[in-house]
Amino acid sequence: MAVPPNVNPADFEAALSLWRSAVGADWVFTAAEDVALYRDAYSPYWAEPEERLASAAVAPATLEQVQAVVRTANRYRIPLYAISTGRNLAYGGSAPALSGSVVLDLKRMNRVLEVNERNAYALVEPGVSYFDLYDHITKAGLDVWIDAPDPGWGSLIGNALDGGGGWTASPFRDHFGSHCGMEVVLADGEVVRTGMGALPNAKSWQHYKWGHGPWVDGLFRQGNMGIVTKMGFYLMPRPEAYISGTVQVYREEDVVALLDTLNLLENQHVVNGSTALYYGDLENIYGSVRDQATPGTPAWSLVLPIYGPEKVIRAQLEYARDKFARVPGMRFVEGELLRTPLTAEAQKRVHQVNFGIPILAIFSMLGRSPANPAPAGGHIGFSPVIPRTGESVLEYQRYYRENMAAMSAGKETGIVGPVFLTNWERSMVALMMFPIGRDKASNSRMRLAFARWVTKAAEHGWAEYRAPTPFQDLVAQTYSFNNHALLHLCETIKDAVDPNGILSPGRYGVWPKHLRKG
Amino acid sequence: MAVPPNVNPADFEAALSLWRSAVGADWVFTAAEDVALYRDAYSPYWAEPEERLASAAVAPATLEQVQAVVRTANRYRIPLYAISTGRNLAYGGSAPALSGSVVLDLKRMNRVLEVNERNAYALVEPGVSYFDLYDHITKAGLDVWIDAPDPGWGSLIGNALDGGGGWTASPFRDHFGSHCGMEVVLADGEVVRTGMGALPNAKSWQHYKWGHGPWVDGLFRQGNMGIVTKMGFYLMPRPEAYISGTVQVYREEDVVALLDTLNLLENQHVVNGSTALYYGDLENIYGSVRDQATPGTPAWSLVLPIYGPEKVIRAQLEYARDKFARVPGMRFVEGELLRTPLTAEAQKRVHQVNFGIPILAIFSMLGRSPANPAPAGGHIGFSPVIPRTGESVLEYQRYYRENMAAMSAGKETGIVGPVFLTNWERSMVALMMFPIGRDKASNSRMRLAFARWVTKAAEHGWAEYRAPTPFQDLVAQTYSFNNHALLHLCETIKDAVDPNGILSPGRYGVWPKHLRKG
Repeated sequence: MAVPPNVNPADFEAALSLWRSAVGADWVFTAAEDVALYRDAYSPYWAEPEERLASAAVAPATLEQVQAVVRTANRYRIPLYAISTGRNLAYGGSAPALSGSVVLDLKRMNRVLEVNERNAYALVEPGVSYFDLYDHITKAGLDVWIDAPDPGWGSLIGNALDGGGGWTASPFRDHFGSHCGMEVVLADGEVVRTGMGALPNAKSWQHYKWGHGPWVDGLFRQGNMGIVTKMGFYLMPRPEAYISGTVQVYREEDVVALLDTLNLLENQHVVNGSTALYYGDLENIYGSVRDQATPGTPAWSLVLPIYGPEKVIRAQLEYARDKFARVPGMRFVEGELLRTPLTAEAQKRVHQVNFGIPILAIFSMLGRSPANPAPAGGHIGFSPVIPRTGESVLEYQRYYRENMAAMSAGKETGIVGPVFLTNWERSMVALMMFPIGRDKASNSRMRLAFARWVTKAAEHGWAEYRAPTPFQDLVAQTYSFNNHALLHLCETIKDAVDPNGILSPGRYGVWPKHLRKG
Repeated sequence: MAVPPNVNPADFEAALSLWRSAVGADWVFTAAEDVALYRDAYSPYWAEPEERLASAAVAPATLEQVQAVVRTANRYRIPLYAISTGRNLAYGGSAPALSGSVVLDLKRMNRVLEVNERNAYALVEPGVSYFDLYDHITKAGLDVWIDAPDPGWGSLIGNALDGGGGWTASPFRDHFGSHCGMEVVLADGEVVRTGMGALPNAKSWQHYKWGHGPWVDGLFRQGNMGIVTKMGFYLMPRPEAYISGTVQVYREEDVVALLDTLNLLENQHVVNGSTALYYGDLENIYGSVRDQATPGTPAWSLVLPIYGPEKVIRAQLEYARDKFARVPGMRFVEGELLRTPLTAEAQKRVHQVNFGIPILAIFSMLGRSPANPAPAGGHIGFSPVIPRTGESVLEYQRYYRENMAAMSAGKETGIVGPVFLTNWERSMVALMMFPIGRDKASNSRMRLAFARWVTKAAEHGWAEYRAPTPFQDLVAQTYSFNNHALLHLCETIKDAVDPNGILSPGRYGVWPKHLRKG
């Protein structure tokens, strides 16, 4: 049996025993085949010594059990790595940041505590997946939509805490930004409720997010200051209809006018859906390529989804078309108007996640592209945030063309990108995906290329907002303004709230004092 | 000359001398008449021993000067109370939470560092007022609106950090929620940039707010963990038009259907302006009263402002009217459509703050009501957040009617309220205003009534989101879930990031260790 680092086997046995008493022997996992289930299937170090592996796992079912598990871990100084459902593939999955940590698996805490239709919010536990919440809402016949990421098998809480986003209307796509109120277990086992939830019998926990005094919720985003056991989320009342338009331009430089117009429309919420900018023609988002040999192929295509009442969205689309008409030579294609709830026939034709329906279809297309029809199986995502302007797109694309070969040993590596994701309001991500599989030599090349991209992009002011676990230190180090002052602040807070450093050590580059380098 | 608590006069002199070297002798204030300018004009303890008074003030002009001032304060353990422009009347103004603190007055740091029209954001220093930013934008001829509170003489940063809101479209009205990136000076004088700003030469500081790893910005909201020296804010591209409708219902209980319909419309952003619920007929927001003697007077009136392109907002208003038509006996009055920029004539007729124009007109009406035509001059605001439902409104109103006399010694006290403010998306505040003047006996009654309301409201689950400085401890104590776990967490963080407890001790109930009671 593996033992966590810096823990003696007798202490670990004592802790396991206490955990078995707390959660039941069936929910403490130490057998190799059980613990192996927590491996990161997309690990860039698969089966290499550096692969991040758990020593054991423990799965509490209630808040009180989480508290008991944490208190024991704190007593014996055993590192815990909390996961909600562990579906965070491409960013570390269910494997810990520090090898030897015990995975605190919260998937059994899967109660939908409340769905309030009139005020359009939900309060859930960490084990509630998008599928769970969707089923709950559907069975109860409530007229609200959820905003799922793609794929939708993960946890609402896990996705929000990892900085994830979805595919319906703004502002719901920003999952952390659309939360309202948390319950958190701290390293000493104490429970904190944030926002209005700190008032006993509060009537407005999910009605006002900021509370009174400092707002601590942000500390738990991509963080390791506590374990979130409940979280409120805003839901969207079902929009009555959906329409979209596609704008295409034929000169590369017209992406400047394209994005300026998009920004104008989105920043005043005339277009409210998850927009997408494609290089070339319309194609699946992970594989658009401009076929420059075919005459009439557009340089850029932009999709503009709009949700709302039918007559409103028709007026919005018309207004958007008028605004884009100022871009010389553009072509505007109006999409079909769909009324909700979708008919069974319509459900088959659409990308359901854009209609609040969680799906797994992404796995059939992920990483696939004309250049790479058979991807290695997994991937890790590199996603620097670049300014939301056409100039940035052109600059990033030029940099990519000029440096890709040298940085990644050529196109044949199967790296996909850059795909310019405009699905976040006010932000743009230049996503690249690095295929990861079971071939060590290939994985090694991908790691090297990935690390180069992180470093080179940072030098250009393009910062990665989210990273696979093994690269979180590297990315955190690029945020180095004033001698890493922000990271030092996080470390100071970490040491204060978790003095024994037991909660998810190393997550997003924040290490407790005894494990800190330098 | 006053000396801060627990500081010996020689140390204070040494600090003053260092501050004079750092910022210039003209910008360190110790004379009684200068320091008196920092008194809170609306203090409920005016001229009583408990009035919170500064010992001195220091006004740096640059980031480096702020750092120097803070380092000196930290060396001599002198409490600083940071203000931006100090206009936070009704919540403490420019007076410190701890008497004897030195006011760190940031009004000289008044540079508009950037206004980006294409991406609709601004980056400003703390001394920049809404008037300053408005002038800057107007002079530069930029086509963006700001969202000002009413009155608009305060600081963007100060208002956002105090939890303030404005009066144009959602989401811009949530001033803290609409910020993107901060620069902060910590208690040791170090500078931190948050979000993407932590990447040197970041290109997306105002393009993506969350950054990588824990998000610390929330700690500086209603907080005392650092001094914010720069902050980014989202702006709204000028909407081409504005329209509003008013819905009136005639039975008290119809407020339930009224708010359910409003929630549906607002939560899908069909209505995007700052809505207002009036009891009775339309009247100024701080003094609506239902005249039950006059036949045909509505029980409730609800104003629905909508911003956007003309044909879109016409469709939105029409849709809203159709939805409200389901409320039996309702009356819908369509307002005038106004195109922007407003004509000079239109500017005179409208409440300009709803059109992105900062004003001071509120001072001519504040606290005035039919019941209290000549208010005492100042007031303090009690603003518990209640659920955004008609049942809550009726419950709060009933509670008010049944208990007001006993809690406040009768209507003749001049207390105004409750006014149900629906201007925040998803939240509702039951605002009451307690008149404050120069009469000690009256102020004493107001303090007693205010404290009773805080306590009694909390018992009912109605929590105050913001409080005048002298009541921040009382309010913070009502957030007592699990033996005040949230406050203890804030104190733990405070002790870690500001171990000498020099930054705004006591602000929003968070005291440093050496000043903590119990």
